[in-house]
Amino acid sequence: MTELIGLVAACLTTISFLPQAVMVLRSGETSGISLTMYAMFTVGVAGWLIFGLLQSSLPIILANAVTLVLAAIILSMKVRAVLKNRPRALPATL
Amino acid sequence: MTELIGLVAACLTTISFLPQAVMVLRSGETSGISLTMYAMFTVGVAGWLIFGLLQSSLPIILANAVTLVLAAIILSMKVRAVLKNRPRALPATL
Repeated sequence: MTELIGLVAACLTTISFLPQAVMVLRSGETSGISLTMYAMFTVGVAGWLIFGLLQSSLPIILANAVTLVLAAIILSMKVRAVLKNRPRALPATL
Repeated sequence: MTELIGLVAACLTTISFLPQAVMVLRSGETSGISLTMYAMFTVGVAGWLIFGLLQSSLPIILANAVTLVLAAIILSMKVRAVLKNRPRALPATL
């Protein structure tokens, strides 16, 4: 029973990033998304993946590999939007 | 070394939701945030918390208790925005 709860929880927290990634990819809308959150989260999930590899734990490796891909998609879309909206060093008219 | 990586990863993925929660509370802006993601994620983290309690694992309990509070704040702000923007059953002029 405890294992089943852990398994369902792992599936939910892992797959939950899929609708957010799809939403960001479809709409390109990232204004409500925190850059700090996804920067910290992506590094953290990469850390979990390394931890899983060092411990040879397949569930930790699998869950975090999937989450890492989804979090990296969201982060890269946010970074792209931030860079796009940055004031340029030289105005386009120059 | 492996434990240290796991500890740093746990801190990062847990605390990462703080800037997102602060951002949502300050701006009230939730349009870029996926309701499906936070609904699934909050239930998943609650599952992890139950798993931690059943396993009497303090690190799992602590990390997921903090994440649950932050994710629930983000989810409740999103739900509030969705309900607010819903067309009403009766127009205000009636």
